[in-house]
Amino acid sequence: MSEKASQGISESANRRPEPRILLAHGSGGELSRELIRDVFARAFDNPLLNAMGDSAVLGELPPGRVALTTDSYVVQPLFFPGGDIGELAVCGTVNDLAVMGARPMYLTAGFILEEGLPVDDLKRIVASMATTARSAGVLIVTGDTKVVDRGAADGIFINTAGVGVIPPGIDLGPHRLQPGDAILVNGTIGDHGLAVMMQREGLTFGSALESDTAPLNGLIETLLAALPDRVHWMRDATRGGVATVLNEWVEAADVGIALTEAQIPVREEVRAACEFLGLDPLYAANEGKVIVAVEGASVEAALAVLQAHPLGRDAAAIGHVTEAHRGRVTLETPYGARRILQMLTGAQLPRIC
Amino acid sequence: MSEKASQGISESANRRPEPRILLAHGSGGELSRELIRDVFARAFDNPLLNAMGDSAVLGELPPGRVALTTDSYVVQPLFFPGGDIGELAVCGTVNDLAVMGARPMYLTAGFILEEGLPVDDLKRIVASMATTARSAGVLIVTGDTKVVDRGAADGIFINTAGVGVIPPGIDLGPHRLQPGDAILVNGTIGDHGLAVMMQREGLTFGSALESDTAPLNGLIETLLAALPDRVHWMRDATRGGVATVLNEWVEAADVGIALTEAQIPVREEVRAACEFLGLDPLYAANEGKVIVAVEGASVEAALAVLQAHPLGRDAAAIGHVTEAHRGRVTLETPYGARRILQMLTGAQLPRIC
Repeated sequence: MSEKASQGISESANRRPEPRILLAHGSGGELSRELIRDVFARAFDNPLLNAMGDSAVLGELPPGRVALTTDSYVVQPLFFPGGDIGELAVCGTVNDLAVMGARPMYLTAGFILEEGLPVDDLKRIVASMATTARSAGVLIVTGDTKVVDRGAADGIFINTAGVGVIPPGIDLGPHRLQPGDAILVNGTIGDHGLAVMMQREGLTFGSALESDTAPLNGLIETLLAALPDRVHWMRDATRGGVATVLNEWVEAADVGIALTEAQIPVREEVRAACEFLGLDPLYAANEGKVIVAVEGASVEAALAVLQAHPLGRDAAAIGHVTEAHRGRVTLETPYGARRILQMLTGAQLPRIC
Repeated sequence: MSEKASQGISESANRRPEPRILLAHGSGGELSRELIRDVFARAFDNPLLNAMGDSAVLGELPPGRVALTTDSYVVQPLFFPGGDIGELAVCGTVNDLAVMGARPMYLTAGFILEEGLPVDDLKRIVASMATTARSAGVLIVTGDTKVVDRGAADGIFINTAGVGVIPPGIDLGPHRLQPGDAILVNGTIGDHGLAVMMQREGLTFGSALESDTAPLNGLIETLLAALPDRVHWMRDATRGGVATVLNEWVEAADVGIALTEAQIPVREEVRAACEFLGLDPLYAANEGKVIVAVEGASVEAALAVLQAHPLGRDAAAIGHVTEAHRGRVTLETPYGARRILQMLTGAQLPRIC
């Protein structure tokens, strides 16, 4: 192997040690400012952030109700097939706004860094956040960085909070769910949970098992524009998966939900990985999947809208709302049996997001 | 000592093991819901939070520009003289809004918990957040909890993001700083940094060395109401202390600032602790101190307003803005010498907030 070719593989080993995060990067002093300038401001670059005040001053908000949300991200590993903690931190918060019918507009970003984190890892994560924010049409306008001593955190934790605006006329929630509503999902389930778990366990299943991490606001906006009054409720099926979201729905709305297993889209690789690890895709995390309740008569129209969008190609109607078993989610198996999908009780997949 | 009296001291040792945070508390399933219901919702109790949506839907905002901020809190120890991480997490974010001239209104709360954290510690911290939020007049409207495995975090990290509104007519910032402006502080400096450091080192200095953690929005609102156009800029002097804030000011506004050491209020205990630990109170963190630039002619009026408020009793004018040494903060010592206060370069006090 020529010297040049070998450099491509072991480049870092032949050069000075890679820069790492120091406690002083969190001191508020010179190194903090350097980090802000060279990493965060460079990647997120926008006038509201660049003002560098103690708070960002937002532009005028459009008419409607303001929605506010927050999530912390502690996923392990930081980089996984189909995404990384940075992309996740933007998508998760964008999606929490979008499912409320809000147009996501502004994000905050709070970083907790472990002393010793390679600066290049941070840069890669921040670049991923910036790219994702751009594609979702949101601005990261203010942030914060803390550094903790080695061993007091695990690489990096990210918190994002988000502000969005729910346009007048949008009314989603448990009060809108009614018997006969169809339950849709915009694609295959369990992809994120299983991609992360397999990576964590050091397993591969040959073909591409990738996280579905994606910002759903474009898809949801299209759906709401097409069927403004027919969509009754939405939720992204993250931690705890589809089964957990639907259990929360039946409790909040005092209805039953009946799913048909054969209708639920699950990738072959995910099914195989689930069997291998003893997991159920219905409880596995998704980061680009929304559960939608639409008026029963609009199910075909809603499916057509979803399937026409790149993030909804595999959309399917997976069940319906019923009065038959209030407070319960049931699953009809391919053999015609029906079982109850309980609320998740253990910690199926820790640190999945 | 009677059996009853001794129970007061060693109560926990004689009973079943105290409940601790489990990984399953972060799963999104049954235990997550229990934690939300029994700990967070109970303490923060308000209709916006209780709706338990993916995002909180805020009430109508008053006229003005919307301000958005975020901070993560990683202070160690979690409980220190004069405060705890929960109180800090509310005050820090409230203050970041208040110094922009905003009325703080809504907060988010993101928790990263280490497996094994005593549930009672969490409850105590959450109760402290609730009390502080009430006293600051803000609502904690949405939150998130993640649990990481033992050793992957250090007890608890908290992120708060905050939304506030800057009323029309308020205009603060570097562009308002002008030569002749007086620099005020609302009381003694370094209290927080030194209280935390002494506790961390297991040292006591006899008398009460306490953190100054406090929500400053009431004080600031009073000042802005009294002298709406005379206040030019404000900043809370947290990480990096007064010297760091003022170094950022001289850089942003292209002016000089001259401080008079004898005018700067420092508690005797803080001075002693600083000498013992080799620290400078000008670089030590504060969590209830605001630096205010006011028009020179209004210095007495501003001081009177501050000193009439419980959080401003020790307010003092500590220096002024000057054209004499642009880009520099200088300190005139009691002996008449003048030295330059550099930007903080090392990590003087890690994990101070």
